[in-house]
Amino acid sequence: MDLVRRAHAMTEIARKARTRGRRIGLVPTMGALHEGHLALVRAARERVDLCVVSIFVNPTQFGPQEDLAQYPRDLVRDSDLCITAGVDYVFAPPAEDLYPPGPPTWVEVEGPSSRFEGASRPGHFRGVATVVLKLLHVVQPHVAVFGRKDAQQAWIVRRMVQDLHVDTEIVVAPTVRDRDGVALSSRNAYLSSQERAAAGAIPRALEAARAARESSAATVDSVVQAACSVLEADGGLRIDYLELVEAESFERATTLDGERLLLVAVFCGRTRLLDNQAL
Amino acid sequence: MDLVRRAHAMTEIARKARTRGRRIGLVPTMGALHEGHLALVRAARERVDLCVVSIFVNPTQFGPQEDLAQYPRDLVRDSDLCITAGVDYVFAPPAEDLYPPGPPTWVEVEGPSSRFEGASRPGHFRGVATVVLKLLHVVQPHVAVFGRKDAQQAWIVRRMVQDLHVDTEIVVAPTVRDRDGVALSSRNAYLSSQERAAAGAIPRALEAARAARESSAATVDSVVQAACSVLEADGGLRIDYLELVEAESFERATTLDGERLLLVAVFCGRTRLLDNQAL
Repeated sequence: MDLVRRAHAMTEIARKARTRGRRIGLVPTMGALHEGHLALVRAARERVDLCVVSIFVNPTQFGPQEDLAQYPRDLVRDSDLCITAGVDYVFAPPAEDLYPPGPPTWVEVEGPSSRFEGASRPGHFRGVATVVLKLLHVVQPHVAVFGRKDAQQAWIVRRMVQDLHVDTEIVVAPTVRDRDGVALSSRNAYLSSQERAAAGAIPRALEAARAARESSAATVDSVVQAACSVLEADGGLRIDYLELVEAESFERATTLDGERLLLVAVFCGRTRLLDNQAL
Repeated sequence: MDLVRRAHAMTEIARKARTRGRRIGLVPTMGALHEGHLALVRAARERVDLCVVSIFVNPTQFGPQEDLAQYPRDLVRDSDLCITAGVDYVFAPPAEDLYPPGPPTWVEVEGPSSRFEGASRPGHFRGVATVVLKLLHVVQPHVAVFGRKDAQQAWIVRRMVQDLHVDTEIVVAPTVRDRDGVALSSRNAYLSSQERAAAGAIPRALEAARAARESSAATVDSVVQAACSVLEADGGLRIDYLELVEAESFERATTLDGERLLLVAVFCGRTRLLDNQAL
Protein backbone atom coordinates (compact mmCIF):
# COMPACT_ATOMS: atom_id res chain seq x y z
CA MET A 1 0.00 0.00 0.00
CA ASP A 2 1.20 3.51 -0.85
CA LEU A 3 0.43 6.64 1.12
CA VAL A 4 -0.10 9.51 -1.33
CA ARG A 5 -0.06 13.00 0.14
CA ARG A 6 -0.34 15.30 -2.90
CA ALA A 7 -3.32 15.70 -5.22
CA HIS A 8 -1.21 15.95 -8.39
CA ALA A 9 0.58 12.70 -7.49
CA MET A 10 -2.76 10.97 -6.92
CA THR A 11 -4.07 12.17 -10.30
CA GLU A 12 -0.91 10.94 -12.00
CA ILE A 13 -1.45 7.49 -10.48
CA ALA A 14 -5.11 7.53 -11.56
CA ARG A 15 -4.26 8.56 -15.13
CA LYS A 16 -1.70 5.78 -15.47
CA ALA A 17 -4.05 3.18 -14.02
CA ARG A 18 -6.80 4.23 -16.41
CA THR A 19 -4.41 4.11 -19.37
CA ARG A 20 -3.66 0.50 -18.43
CA GLY A 21 -7.39 -0.23 -18.34
CA ARG A 22 -7.50 -0.73 -14.58
CA ARG A 23 -10.72 0.15 -12.77
CA ILE A 24 -10.39 2.47 -9.79
CA GLY A 25 -12.57 2.51 -6.66
CA LEU A 26 -12.68 5.31 -4.09
CA VAL A 27 -13.83 5.20 -0.48
CA PRO A 28 -13.89 8.80 0.79
CA THR A 29 -13.40 9.02 4.58
CA MET A 30 -12.41 11.47 7.28
CA GLY A 31 -10.16 8.81 8.87
CA ALA A 32 -10.73 7.40 12.36
CA LEU A 33 -11.51 4.23 10.46
CA HIS A 34 -13.71 1.51 11.89
CA GLU A 35 -15.34 -1.68 10.68
CA GLY A 36 -17.98 0.39 8.84
CA HIS A 37 -15.31 1.95 6.64
CA LEU A 38 -13.70 -1.44 6.06
CA ALA A 39 -17.04 -2.77 4.81
CA LEU A 40 -17.02 0.08 2.27
CA VAL A 41 -13.51 -0.97 1.24
CA ARG A 42 -14.72 -4.53 0.69
CA ALA A 43 -17.66 -3.24 -1.38
CA ALA A 44 -15.19 -1.26 -3.49
CA ARG A 45 -12.69 -4.11 -3.89
CA GLU A 46 -15.42 -6.41 -5.24
CA ARG A 47 -15.96 -3.96 -8.09
CA VAL A 48 -12.54 -2.62 -9.08
CA ASP A 49 -8.88 -3.46 -9.62
CA LEU A 50 -7.43 -0.72 -7.50
CA CYS A 51 -8.85 0.61 -4.26
CA VAL A 52 -8.16 4.14 -2.97
CA VAL A 53 -9.18 5.32 0.50
CA SER A 54 -9.08 9.07 0.94
CA ILE A 55 -8.54 10.38 4.46
CA PHE A 56 -9.34 14.06 4.75
CA VAL A 57 -11.03 15.86 7.62
CA ASN A 58 -12.84 18.35 5.43
CA PRO A 59 -13.01 21.73 7.17
CA THR A 60 -15.80 23.13 4.97
CA GLN A 61 -18.38 20.62 6.16
CA PHE A 62 -17.97 21.59 9.82
CA GLY A 63 -19.87 24.53 11.32
CA PRO A 64 -18.04 27.08 13.47
CA GLN A 65 -19.38 25.51 16.70
CA GLU A 66 -18.67 21.92 15.64
CA ASP A 67 -15.99 19.35 16.40
CA LEU A 68 -13.44 20.04 13.62
CA ALA A 69 -10.56 20.59 16.09
CA GLN A 70 -11.19 17.49 18.23
CA TYR A 71 -12.24 15.19 15.39
CA PRO A 72 -10.10 12.03 15.91
CA ARG A 73 -7.02 11.82 13.67
CA ASP A 74 -4.56 8.90 13.58
CA LEU A 75 -3.02 8.39 10.17
CA VAL A 76 -0.67 5.61 11.29
CA ARG A 77 -3.45 3.50 12.75
CA ASP A 78 -5.71 4.25 9.74
CA SER A 79 -2.94 3.28 7.29
CA ASP A 80 -2.33 0.02 9.16
CA LEU A 81 -6.03 -0.82 8.91
CA CYS A 82 -5.96 -0.04 5.19
CA ILE A 83 -2.96 -2.33 4.63
CA THR A 84 -4.80 -5.17 6.33
CA ALA A 85 -7.95 -4.44 4.30
CA GLY A 86 -6.08 -4.67 0.99
CA VAL A 87 -6.28 -1.00 0.09
CA ASP A 88 -3.88 -0.01 -2.70
CA TYR A 89 -3.54 3.71 -1.98
CA VAL A 90 -4.34 5.91 0.98
CA PHE A 91 -4.76 9.48 -0.28
CA ALA A 92 -4.33 11.92 2.61
CA PRO A 93 -3.77 15.39 1.19
CA PRO A 94 -3.05 18.57 3.16
CA ALA A 95 -5.96 21.05 3.21
CA GLU A 96 -4.16 23.50 0.92
CA ASP A 97 -4.08 20.87 -1.83
CA LEU A 98 -7.86 20.52 -1.90
CA TYR A 99 -8.49 24.19 -1.09
CA PRO A 100 -5.81 26.16 -2.95
CA PRO A 101 -5.58 29.91 -2.21
CA GLY A 102 -7.88 32.19 -4.22
CA PRO A 103 -11.66 32.58 -4.50
CA PRO A 104 -13.30 29.26 -3.63
CA THR A 105 -15.60 27.31 -5.93
CA TRP A 106 -18.68 25.80 -4.29
CA VAL A 107 -20.89 22.96 -5.40
CA GLU A 108 -24.41 22.98 -4.04
CA VAL A 109 -27.37 20.68 -4.59
CA GLU A 110 -30.66 22.50 -4.10
CA GLY A 111 -33.64 21.05 -2.27
CA PRO A 112 -32.88 18.46 0.44
CA SER A 113 -29.49 20.08 1.21
CA SER A 114 -31.21 22.63 3.42
CA ARG A 115 -33.46 20.16 5.25
CA PHE A 116 -32.97 17.57 8.05
CA GLU A 117 -29.19 17.27 8.47
CA GLY A 118 -28.79 20.40 6.34
CA ALA A 119 -31.10 22.41 8.62
CA SER A 120 -29.17 21.32 11.72
CA ARG A 121 -25.81 21.96 10.06
CA PRO A 122 -26.11 24.96 7.68
CA GLY A 123 -23.53 24.77 4.90
CA HIS A 124 -22.65 21.15 5.75
CA PHE A 125 -23.79 19.65 2.47
CA ARG A 126 -22.22 22.42 0.42
CA GLY A 127 -18.92 21.40 2.03
CA VAL A 128 -19.62 17.72 1.43
CA ALA A 129 -20.64 18.14 -2.23
CA THR A 130 -17.64 20.37 -2.93
CA VAL A 131 -15.03 18.10 -1.37
CA VAL A 132 -16.52 14.92 -2.83
CA LEU A 133 -16.46 16.42 -6.32
CA LYS A 134 -12.82 17.47 -5.84
CA LEU A 135 -11.94 13.95 -4.68
CA LEU A 136 -13.74 12.44 -7.67
CA HIS A 137 -11.73 14.70 -9.99
CA VAL A 138 -8.41 13.93 -8.30
CA VAL A 139 -8.86 10.16 -7.95
CA GLN A 140 -10.93 9.63 -11.14
CA PRO A 141 -12.66 6.53 -9.80
CA HIS A 142 -14.99 4.30 -11.80
CA VAL A 143 -16.83 3.54 -8.54
CA ALA A 144 -17.12 5.46 -5.27
CA VAL A 145 -18.62 3.88 -2.16
CA PHE A 146 -20.54 5.69 0.58
CA GLY A 147 -22.19 4.39 3.74
CA ARG A 148 -25.94 4.18 4.15
CA LYS A 149 -25.68 5.51 7.72
CA ASP A 150 -25.23 8.98 6.23
CA ALA A 151 -28.28 8.50 4.03
CA GLN A 152 -28.83 12.15 3.17
CA GLN A 153 -25.18 12.57 2.26
CA ALA A 154 -25.39 9.54 -0.02
CA TRP A 155 -28.55 10.95 -1.63
CA ILE A 156 -26.91 14.33 -2.24
CA VAL A 157 -23.72 12.83 -3.67
CA ARG A 158 -25.76 10.61 -5.98
CA ARG A 159 -27.88 13.55 -7.12
CA MET A 160 -24.79 15.69 -7.71
CA VAL A 161 -23.10 12.97 -9.74
CA GLN A 162 -26.22 12.42 -11.82
CA ASP A 163 -26.96 16.10 -12.37
CA LEU A 164 -23.36 17.08 -13.17
CA HIS A 165 -22.83 13.96 -15.32
CA VAL A 166 -19.80 12.79 -13.33
CA ASP A 167 -18.69 9.50 -14.90
CA THR A 168 -18.48 7.61 -11.59
CA GLU A 169 -20.85 4.96 -10.27
CA ILE A 170 -22.00 5.69 -6.71
CA VAL A 171 -22.48 2.62 -4.53
CA VAL A 172 -24.20 2.92 -1.15
CA ALA A 173 -23.23 0.10 1.23
CA PRO A 174 -25.23 -1.11 4.25
CA THR A 175 -24.70 0.33 7.72
CA VAL A 176 -22.45 -1.75 9.95
CA ARG A 177 -23.74 -2.08 13.52
CA ASP A 178 -22.27 -3.00 16.85
CA ARG A 179 -23.62 -6.00 18.82
CA ASP A 180 -26.27 -3.81 20.45
CA GLY A 181 -27.33 -2.48 17.06
CA VAL A 182 -25.73 0.97 17.38
CA ALA A 183 -24.40 2.11 14.01
CA LEU A 184 -20.61 2.35 13.86
CA SER A 185 -19.42 5.95 13.72
CA SER A 186 -16.11 7.67 14.36
CA ARG A 187 -18.02 9.97 16.73
CA ASN A 188 -18.97 7.02 18.98
CA ALA A 189 -15.46 7.50 20.41
CA TYR A 190 -16.75 10.68 22.10
CA LEU A 191 -19.31 8.74 24.17
CA SER A 192 -18.95 7.90 27.87
CA SER A 193 -19.95 4.35 28.80
CA GLN A 194 -23.24 5.70 30.15
CA GLU A 195 -23.91 7.59 26.90
CA ARG A 196 -22.91 4.54 24.88
CA ALA A 197 -25.58 2.56 26.77
CA ALA A 198 -28.19 5.28 26.11
CA ALA A 199 -27.35 5.18 22.38
CA GLY A 200 -28.73 1.64 22.30
CA ALA A 201 -32.19 3.20 22.19
CA ILE A 202 -31.54 4.42 18.62
CA PRO A 203 -31.59 1.00 16.89
CA ARG A 204 -34.46 -0.05 19.18
CA ALA A 205 -36.41 3.03 18.07
CA LEU A 206 -35.80 2.22 14.40
CA GLU A 207 -36.95 -1.35 15.02
CA ALA A 208 -40.08 -0.04 16.76
CA ALA A 209 -40.84 2.10 13.71
CA ARG A 210 -40.34 -0.89 11.43
CA ALA A 211 -42.75 -2.93 13.57
CA ALA A 212 -45.31 -0.08 13.63
CA ARG A 213 -45.13 0.09 9.83
CA GLU A 214 -46.36 -3.53 9.69
CA SER A 215 -49.67 -2.61 11.32
CA SER A 216 -52.61 -2.34 8.93
CA ALA A 217 -53.52 0.98 10.58
CA ALA A 218 -50.02 2.44 10.21
CA THR A 219 -49.73 6.13 9.36
CA VAL A 220 -46.75 8.46 9.01
CA ASP A 221 -47.51 9.74 12.51
CA SER A 222 -47.86 6.30 14.10
CA VAL A 223 -44.54 5.17 12.65
CA VAL A 224 -42.70 8.31 13.75
CA GLN A 225 -44.38 8.19 17.16
CA ALA A 226 -43.29 4.60 17.73
CA ALA A 227 -39.67 5.60 17.26
CA CYS A 228 -40.11 8.79 19.27
CA SER A 229 -41.46 6.93 22.31
CA VAL A 230 -38.43 4.66 22.44
CA LEU A 231 -35.95 7.51 21.96
CA GLU A 232 -37.56 9.55 24.76
CA ALA A 233 -38.14 6.64 27.15
CA ASP A 234 -35.09 6.82 29.38
CA GLY A 235 -34.07 10.48 29.07
CA GLY A 236 -30.50 9.79 27.91
CA LEU A 237 -31.09 11.13 24.39
CA ARG A 238 -32.35 14.43 23.01
CA ILE A 239 -33.96 14.25 19.58
CA ASP A 240 -32.56 16.73 17.05
CA TYR A 241 -34.84 15.54 14.26
CA LEU A 242 -36.88 12.45 13.53
CA GLU A 243 -38.43 12.52 10.06
CA LEU A 244 -39.95 10.15 7.57
CA VAL A 245 -38.87 10.93 4.00
CA GLU A 246 -39.44 9.49 0.56
CA ALA A 247 -36.32 7.48 -0.25
CA GLU A 248 -36.26 8.59 -3.87
CA SER A 249 -36.82 12.35 -3.58
CA PHE A 250 -35.73 12.90 0.02
CA GLU A 251 -38.89 14.98 0.45
CA ARG A 252 -40.81 14.74 3.73
CA ALA A 253 -43.27 11.84 3.37
CA THR A 254 -46.99 12.51 3.74
CA THR A 255 -48.07 8.92 3.10
CA LEU A 256 -46.59 5.44 3.55
CA ASP A 257 -47.02 4.49 -0.12
CA GLY A 258 -43.60 3.72 -1.53
CA GLU A 259 -40.09 3.34 -0.20
CA ARG A 260 -39.60 5.40 2.94
CA LEU A 261 -36.64 6.25 5.12
CA LEU A 262 -36.90 7.15 8.78
CA LEU A 263 -34.12 9.59 9.62
CA VAL A 264 -32.97 10.16 13.16
CA ALA A 265 -30.44 12.54 14.66
CA VAL A 266 -30.07 12.65 18.44
CA PHE A 267 -27.82 14.30 20.94
CA CYS A 268 -26.29 11.81 23.31
CA GLY A 269 -24.59 14.08 25.81
CA ARG A 270 -22.73 16.55 23.59
CA THR A 271 -22.33 14.05 20.75
CA ARG A 272 -24.69 14.07 17.79
CA LEU A 273 -25.46 10.63 16.35
CA LEU A 274 -27.23 9.76 13.08
CA ASP A 275 -29.04 6.69 11.96
CA ASN A 276 -31.83 5.69 9.60
CA GLN A 277 -34.07 2.81 8.69
CA ALA A 278 -35.59 1.85 5.35
CA LEU A 279 -39.33 1.16 5.67
CA MET B 1 -18.26 14.39 -38.70
CA ASP B 2 -20.93 12.95 -36.41
CA LEU B 3 -23.74 14.87 -34.79
CA VAL B 4 -24.28 13.53 -31.27
CA ARG B 5 -27.50 14.53 -29.55
CA ARG B 6 -27.47 12.59 -26.27
CA ALA B 7 -25.11 13.07 -23.33
CA HIS B 8 -24.75 9.35 -22.62
CA ALA B 9 -23.80 8.71 -26.26
CA MET B 10 -21.19 11.47 -26.10
CA THR B 11 -19.70 10.03 -22.90
CA GLU B 12 -19.56 6.58 -24.50
CA ILE B 13 -17.58 8.03 -27.43
CA ALA B 14 -15.27 9.87 -25.03
CA ARG B 15 -14.63 6.74 -22.94
CA LYS B 16 -13.78 4.69 -26.02
CA ALA B 17 -11.49 7.38 -27.41
CA ARG B 18 -9.64 7.63 -24.09
CA THR B 19 -9.29 3.85 -23.90
CA ARG B 20 -7.58 3.99 -27.29
CA GLY B 21 -5.25 6.70 -25.99
CA ARG B 22 -6.71 9.43 -28.17
CA ARG B 23 -6.62 12.99 -26.87
CA ILE B 24 -9.92 14.86 -26.86
CA GLY B 25 -10.44 18.61 -27.34
CA LEU B 26 -13.64 20.50 -26.58
CA VAL B 27 -14.80 23.86 -27.89
CA PRO B 28 -17.95 24.81 -25.95
CA THR B 29 -20.23 27.13 -27.94
CA MET B 30 -23.82 28.33 -28.06
CA GLY B 31 -23.85 27.86 -31.84
CA ALA B 32 -24.31 30.74 -34.32
CA LEU B 33 -20.73 29.93 -35.22
CA HIS B 34 -18.42 32.50 -36.77
CA GLU B 35 -14.75 32.79 -37.61
CA GLY B 36 -13.97 33.36 -33.90
CA HIS B 37 -15.30 29.92 -33.01
CA LEU B 38 -13.42 28.37 -35.94
CA ALA B 39 -10.19 29.84 -34.58
CA LEU B 40 -10.95 28.05 -31.30
CA VAL B 41 -11.45 24.84 -33.28
CA ARG B 42 -8.04 25.30 -34.93
CA ALA B 43 -6.45 25.92 -31.51
CA ALA B 44 -8.04 22.69 -30.26
CA ARG B 45 -7.06 20.64 -33.33
CA GLU B 46 -3.40 21.61 -32.92
CA ARG B 47 -3.45 20.00 -29.47
CA VAL B 48 -5.62 16.86 -29.75
CA ASP B 49 -6.56 13.89 -31.91
CA LEU B 50 -10.29 14.35 -31.76
CA CYS B 51 -12.14 17.66 -31.74
CA VAL B 52 -15.62 18.08 -30.22
CA VAL B 53 -17.68 21.26 -30.62
CA SER B 54 -20.61 21.49 -28.23
CA ILE B 55 -23.57 23.59 -29.33
CA PHE B 56 -25.92 24.37 -26.49
CA VAL B 57 -27.78 27.60 -25.81
CA ASN B 58 -27.53 27.34 -22.04
CA PRO B 59 -30.72 28.69 -20.43
CA THR B 60 -29.21 29.13 -16.96
CA GLN B 61 -26.73 31.79 -18.05
CA PHE B 62 -29.45 34.10 -19.40
CA GLY B 63 -31.32 36.50 -17.14
CA PRO B 64 -35.13 36.73 -17.32
CA GLN B 65 -34.95 39.96 -19.37
CA GLU B 66 -32.25 38.69 -21.72
CA ASP B 67 -32.16 37.33 -25.27
CA LEU B 68 -32.54 33.57 -24.67
CA ALA B 69 -35.58 33.27 -26.95
CA GLN B 70 -34.15 35.22 -29.88
CA TYR B 71 -30.58 33.94 -29.59
CA PRO B 72 -29.69 32.79 -33.13
CA ARG B 73 -29.97 29.01 -33.70
CA ASP B 74 -29.09 27.22 -36.95
CA LEU B 75 -27.77 23.71 -36.34
CA VAL B 76 -27.56 22.84 -40.05
CA ARG B 77 -25.40 25.83 -40.89
CA ASP B 78 -23.30 25.32 -37.73
CA SER B 79 -22.76 21.62 -38.56
CA ASP B 80 -21.69 22.52 -42.11
CA LEU B 81 -19.13 24.95 -40.73
CA CYS B 82 -17.86 22.26 -38.37
CA ILE B 83 -17.45 19.74 -41.19
CA THR B 84 -15.37 22.25 -43.16
CA ALA B 85 -13.30 23.04 -40.05
CA GLY B 86 -12.42 19.37 -39.49
CA VAL B 87 -14.46 18.90 -36.32
CA ASP B 88 -14.95 15.22 -35.43
CA TYR B 89 -18.11 15.50 -33.32
CA VAL B 90 -20.77 18.16 -32.85
CA PHE B 91 -22.44 17.57 -29.48
CA ALA B 92 -25.83 19.31 -29.43
CA PRO B 93 -27.87 17.92 -26.53
CA PRO B 94 -31.45 18.79 -25.63
CA ALA B 95 -31.78 20.91 -22.46
CA GLU B 96 -33.27 18.01 -20.47
CA ASP B 97 -30.08 16.02 -20.99
CA LEU B 98 -27.90 18.65 -19.32
CA TYR B 99 -30.59 19.67 -16.82
CA PRO B 100 -32.40 16.47 -15.82
CA PRO B 101 -35.54 16.82 -13.66
CA GLY B 102 -34.99 17.06 -9.90
CA PRO B 103 -33.22 19.53 -7.60
CA PRO B 104 -30.49 21.30 -9.56
CA THR B 105 -26.81 21.30 -8.64
CA TRP B 106 -25.03 24.64 -9.00
CA VAL B 107 -21.36 25.40 -9.33
CA GLU B 108 -20.29 28.86 -8.26
CA VAL B 109 -16.91 30.56 -8.13
CA GLU B 110 -16.80 33.24 -5.44
CA GLY B 111 -15.21 36.65 -5.89
CA PRO B 112 -15.10 38.00 -9.46
CA SER B 113 -18.32 36.15 -10.39
CA SER B 114 -20.38 38.94 -8.83
CA ARG B 115 -18.42 41.82 -10.38
CA PHE B 116 -18.24 43.45 -13.84
CA GLU B 117 -20.13 41.07 -16.18
CA GLY B 118 -21.47 39.28 -13.10
CA ALA B 119 -22.88 42.53 -11.66
CA SER B 120 -24.62 43.35 -14.95
CA ARG B 121 -25.91 39.78 -15.33
CA PRO B 122 -26.71 38.33 -11.88
CA GLY B 123 -26.46 34.54 -11.91
CA HIS B 124 -24.78 34.53 -15.32
CA PHE B 125 -21.50 33.01 -14.17
CA ARG B 126 -23.22 30.45 -11.98
CA GLY B 127 -24.96 29.25 -15.14
CA VAL B 128 -21.70 29.32 -17.10
CA ALA B 129 -19.66 27.46 -14.46
CA THR B 130 -22.38 24.85 -14.02
CA VAL B 131 -22.86 24.10 -17.72
CA VAL B 132 -19.14 24.12 -18.49
CA LEU B 133 -18.48 21.61 -15.72
CA LYS B 134 -21.29 19.38 -17.02
CA LEU B 135 -19.82 19.56 -20.53
CA LEU B 136 -16.36 18.71 -19.20
CA HIS B 137 -17.81 15.67 -17.44
CA VAL B 138 -19.76 14.50 -20.50
CA VAL B 139 -17.04 15.07 -23.11
CA GLN B 140 -14.04 14.28 -20.84
CA PRO B 141 -11.65 16.45 -22.85
CA HIS B 142 -7.91 16.69 -22.27
CA VAL B 143 -8.09 20.29 -23.54
CA ALA B 144 -10.95 22.81 -23.67
CA VAL B 145 -10.63 26.06 -25.60
CA PHE B 146 -12.32 29.37 -24.73
CA GLY B 147 -12.15 32.77 -26.42
CA ARG B 148 -10.32 35.70 -24.90
CA LYS B 149 -13.18 38.04 -25.89
CA ASP B 150 -15.11 36.68 -22.91
CA ALA B 151 -12.15 37.28 -20.61
CA GLN B 152 -14.02 37.08 -17.33
CA GLN B 153 -15.70 33.84 -18.38
CA ALA B 154 -12.31 32.37 -19.29
CA TRP B 155 -10.92 33.49 -15.92
CA ILE B 156 -13.81 31.89 -14.02
CA VAL B 157 -13.63 28.62 -15.96
CA ARG B 158 -9.89 28.44 -15.36
CA ARG B 159 -10.34 29.13 -11.65
CA MET B 160 -13.11 26.52 -11.36
CA VAL B 161 -11.02 23.89 -13.13
CA GLN B 162 -8.02 24.63 -10.91
CA ASP B 163 -9.98 24.77 -7.66
CA LEU B 164 -12.09 21.66 -8.36
CA HIS B 165 -9.06 19.76 -9.76
CA VAL B 166 -10.73 19.02 -13.09
CA ASP B 167 -8.19 17.12 -15.20
CA THR B 168 -8.61 19.31 -18.30
CA GLU B 169 -6.21 21.91 -19.67
CA ILE B 170 -7.94 25.24 -20.34
CA VAL B 171 -6.62 27.12 -23.37
CA VAL B 172 -7.65 30.72 -24.01
CA ALA B 173 -7.34 31.70 -27.67
CA PRO B 174 -6.99 35.25 -29.05
CA THR B 175 -10.01 37.32 -30.02
CA VAL B 176 -10.78 37.31 -33.74
CA ARG B 177 -11.69 40.73 -35.13
CA ASP B 178 -13.44 42.05 -38.19
CA ARG B 179 -11.65 44.38 -40.62
CA ASP B 180 -12.67 47.43 -38.59
CA GLY B 181 -11.38 45.79 -35.42
CA VAL B 182 -14.78 44.89 -33.93
CA ALA B 183 -14.57 41.56 -32.08
CA LEU B 184 -16.57 38.78 -33.74
CA SER B 185 -19.65 37.83 -31.71
CA SER B 186 -22.83 35.95 -32.46
CA ARG B 187 -24.69 38.96 -31.06
CA ASN B 188 -23.25 41.23 -33.79
CA ALA B 189 -26.06 39.75 -35.92
CA TYR B 190 -28.51 41.86 -33.89
CA LEU B 191 -26.90 45.15 -35.01
CA SER B 192 -28.35 47.48 -37.65
CA SER B 193 -25.80 48.85 -40.12
CA GLN B 194 -25.78 52.13 -38.21
CA GLU B 195 -25.16 50.32 -34.92
CA ARG B 196 -22.47 48.20 -36.56
CA ALA B 197 -20.68 51.40 -37.58
CA ALA B 198 -20.97 52.80 -34.02
CA ALA B 199 -19.46 49.57 -32.63
CA GLY B 200 -16.24 50.49 -34.44
CA ALA B 201 -15.54 52.87 -31.53
CA ILE B 202 -14.95 49.87 -29.20
CA PRO B 203 -11.64 48.68 -30.70
CA ARG B 204 -10.60 52.33 -31.19
CA ALA B 205 -11.24 52.94 -27.49
CA LEU B 206 -9.15 49.91 -26.52
CA GLU B 207 -6.36 51.15 -28.79
CA ALA B 208 -6.58 54.62 -27.18
CA ALA B 209 -6.19 52.99 -23.75
CA ARG B 210 -3.19 51.03 -24.99
CA ALA B 211 -1.61 54.24 -26.31
CA ALA B 212 -2.37 56.09 -23.04
CA ARG B 213 -0.68 53.28 -21.11
CA GLU B 214 2.56 54.05 -22.99
CA SER B 215 2.76 57.56 -21.51
CA SER B 216 5.22 57.91 -18.63
CA ALA B 217 2.51 59.78 -16.68
CA ALA B 218 -0.09 57.02 -17.21
CA THR B 219 -2.42 56.21 -14.31
CA VAL B 220 -5.38 53.87 -13.97
CA ASP B 221 -7.67 56.87 -14.44
CA SER B 222 -5.85 58.25 -17.48
CA VAL B 223 -5.99 54.86 -19.21
CA VAL B 224 -9.67 54.33 -18.47
CA GLN B 225 -10.45 57.94 -19.41
CA ALA B 226 -8.73 57.56 -22.77
CA ALA B 227 -11.03 54.65 -23.62
CA CYS B 228 -14.08 56.38 -22.16
CA SER B 229 -13.61 59.49 -24.31
CA VAL B 230 -13.58 57.45 -27.51
CA LEU B 231 -16.60 55.35 -26.48
CA GLU B 232 -18.63 58.47 -25.64
CA ALA B 233 -17.47 60.57 -28.60
CA ASP B 234 -20.26 59.99 -31.11
CA GLY B 235 -23.22 59.05 -28.89
CA GLY B 236 -23.90 55.70 -30.58
CA LEU B 237 -22.80 53.64 -27.57
CA ARG B 238 -23.81 53.56 -23.92
CA ILE B 239 -21.17 52.26 -21.51
CA ASP B 240 -22.35 49.50 -19.18
CA TYR B 241 -18.98 49.15 -17.49
CA LEU B 242 -15.40 50.08 -18.29
CA GLU B 243 -12.94 48.73 -15.76
CA LEU B 244 -9.26 48.04 -15.41
CA VAL B 245 -8.56 44.76 -13.62
CA GLU B 246 -5.53 42.74 -12.61
CA ALA B 247 -5.26 39.95 -15.19
CA GLU B 248 -4.27 37.36 -12.62
CA SER B 249 -6.78 37.97 -9.82
CA PHE B 250 -9.53 39.73 -11.79
CA GLU B 251 -9.64 42.26 -8.95
CA ARG B 252 -10.15 45.95 -9.81
CA ALA B 253 -6.70 47.44 -10.46
CA THR B 254 -5.48 50.33 -8.33
CA THR B 255 -2.09 50.64 -10.02
CA LEU B 256 -0.59 49.91 -13.44
CA ASP B 257 2.13 47.61 -12.04
CA GLY B 258 1.69 44.19 -13.61
CA GLU B 259 -0.48 42.67 -16.27
CA ARG B 260 -3.74 44.53 -16.65
CA LEU B 261 -6.92 43.96 -18.61
CA LEU B 262 -9.27 46.74 -19.67
CA LEU B 263 -12.81 45.36 -19.74
CA VAL B 264 -15.56 47.04 -21.69
CA ALA B 265 -19.26 46.32 -22.01
CA VAL B 266 -21.42 48.71 -24.02
CA PHE B 267 -24.95 48.88 -25.23
CA CYS B 268 -25.16 49.48 -28.94
CA GLY B 269 -28.87 50.06 -29.45
CA ARG B 270 -30.42 47.16 -27.51
CA THR B 271 -27.42 44.89 -28.04
CA ARG B 272 -24.77 44.46 -25.37
CA LEU B 273 -21.24 43.99 -26.68
CA LEU B 274 -18.11 42.93 -24.79
CA ASP B 275 -14.46 43.42 -25.51
CA ASN B 276 -11.19 43.72 -23.62
CA GLN B 277 -7.56 44.65 -24.10
CA ALA B 278 -4.46 43.36 -22.34
CA LEU B 279 -2.27 46.23 -21.13
